[in-house]
Amino acid sequence: MIKKISVIGAGSWGTALAVSLANNGISVNMWSVFEDEIKMLSEKREHVHKLPGVVIPENVTFTSDLEKAVHDAEVLVLVVPSQTVRQTAKDISKYIRKDMIIVSCSKGLEEGTGLRMSEVIGEEIKDAKTVILSGPSHAEEVGKGIPTTVVAASCDIKAAELVQDIFMSPEFRVYTNSDAVGVELGGALKNVIALCAGISDGLGFGDNTKAALMTRGITEISRLGVSMGANPQTFAGLTGIGDLIVTCTSMHSRNRRAGILIGQGKSPKEAMDEVKMVVEGVTTTKAAYELAQKRKVPMPITFEAYEVLFNGKKRDRRCPTL
Amino acid sequence: MIKKISVIGAGSWGTALAVSLANNGISVNMWSVFEDEIKMLSEKREHVHKLPGVVIPENVTFTSDLEKAVHDAEVLVLVVPSQTVRQTAKDISKYIRKDMIIVSCSKGLEEGTGLRMSEVIGEEIKDAKTVILSGPSHAEEVGKGIPTTVVAASCDIKAAELVQDIFMSPEFRVYTNSDAVGVELGGALKNVIALCAGISDGLGFGDNTKAALMTRGITEISRLGVSMGANPQTFAGLTGIGDLIVTCTSMHSRNRRAGILIGQGKSPKEAMDEVKMVVEGVTTTKAAYELAQKRKVPMPITFEAYEVLFNGKKRDRRCPTL
Repeated sequence: MIKKISVIGAGSWGTALAVSLANNGISVNMWSVFEDEIKMLSEKREHVHKLPGVVIPENVTFTSDLEKAVHDAEVLVLVVPSQTVRQTAKDISKYIRKDMIIVSCSKGLEEGTGLRMSEVIGEEIKDAKTVILSGPSHAEEVGKGIPTTVVAASCDIKAAELVQDIFMSPEFRVYTNSDAVGVELGGALKNVIALCAGISDGLGFGDNTKAALMTRGITEISRLGVSMGANPQTFAGLTGIGDLIVTCTSMHSRNRRAGILIGQGKSPKEAMDEVKMVVEGVTTTKAAYELAQKRKVPMPITFEAYEVLFNGKKRDRRCPTL
Repeated sequence: MIKKISVIGAGSWGTALAVSLANNGISVNMWSVFEDEIKMLSEKREHVHKLPGVVIPENVTFTSDLEKAVHDAEVLVLVVPSQTVRQTAKDISKYIRKDMIIVSCSKGLEEGTGLRMSEVIGEEIKDAKTVILSGPSHAEEVGKGIPTTVVAASCDIKAAELVQDIFMSPEFRVYTNSDAVGVELGGALKNVIALCAGISDGLGFGDNTKAALMTRGITEISRLGVSMGANPQTFAGLTGIGDLIVTCTSMHSRNRRAGILIGQGKSPKEAMDEVKMVVEGVTTTKAAYELAQKRKVPMPITFEAYEVLFNGKKRDRRCPTL
């Protein structure tokens, strides 16, 4: 039975996962690179900026000492922004023990390389035993104990089952899947479609339009995924269409919020500035575009998103790509 | 080229479809059994109760004479409530010419028999050439010209293509599919899940919960569909998950609205009375439950909905069936 886990990264999702684990009776150590974030968490026992209103239980401690965080834990939950996964994995690699499980919770493809997060971790940590945790799961709702379902995925199914065991609760239901590639791609690529769903909303289109976009969106995601070795069934599940639905219909998604601003006529840069947070869909659109080009997979929605974001294509009320 | 079409049924969807056809240059005759509805439509050129704000073009005429409506038309668009499809088809059968195409736009399964609408039409009209029109398409949005996608489905693919041609426009994009069974079942059974999505919302659950419900919902719909001869791929498309998304996320859906009231603690009867319109999801839940029992197909969400609607099962904040 796992008794001590460190959560590496103290954003909204990291905090919600720490609270879930702590509620299962596990001692949790939360790590952040920011001293002032650790101070605030220790003093308030609440992430007042990123997950306000959620009390962090007594069995959660806080540290900015990465060596200590890695050393004390049986399992690591890695939940930093996708652009910082490589550097954080490199730092962790100095302290990690062989066969330690890393739960990868960041969604995205690396800029420049197009690599999945588990591949990035694998490059920095030799023999990393990585399990992907993904699914339709806004941190704000998980923090409040609202019923949520996720998937723990790994080609090492025993590792996936261990992760299932530590997170499972009546409110947080964990399934397993051995198709790590499909689970990871679904989680990353949905942000492209969420951005487009936002643009559709910003243009004043309706629920009919957005449902069409989501349905055709998961089809092209699945097409790319299958060309990369994923199981097409995965995209019909929680980490595929499920996560896409939650991201495209909720105002919690900053990808969707940025899209709405673009649809209303702002430039992509103005939209990013206004949302004031990293919009992972933008980086992922570029990575997906390049992967699709290389593999000759038709992805009409992603290609249009690329033109809008990177080639200054202007808004157009017709929808020729559906 | 088709020049004259009669739309049988003048509700919100019938009116929106009549307007779409008229905008394509086709002469449309709208029929309603209600004399006062015909009078209102003729005088106002707008369905003031069911599709307010949408002007009906000059090339639409109105009649309550079914013989005239059938006689004058090359194609019939049948868009009456699903419970009245049998009687309307029986009435039409007296006047119909051989080989006339009937576009079936009603969604649901017949109470008592569990038959699909095209099967009901086929029982009343010998040699009926039926094409199903289905997809994520709120009438309110189609009436306003918001981009919408639908599917024309028939095992007679030539007939499906003819229906595609008459409806196709830049704002109303029509695909074809030869899997009439899958298209029809998706359109009918999504109302069960929409009712459950409403219950989830009424209980105060979140976007995470609803996304899980929709994802697992389409899985069990697909399972029943496949046992009845449908193509599993159909449920991943516009008439499956696409229509389910639009129905579960929009306040236009009376199935969802009734579910919200039940989730808030009203009895199913109180909820129906308050929504004041026929809630097709209730009838369909019973039909789906009986079909699944007969075919021994596990449908955990549908079974729970049946218990709530017909066996007085009380609300319960846990979600054991996901």
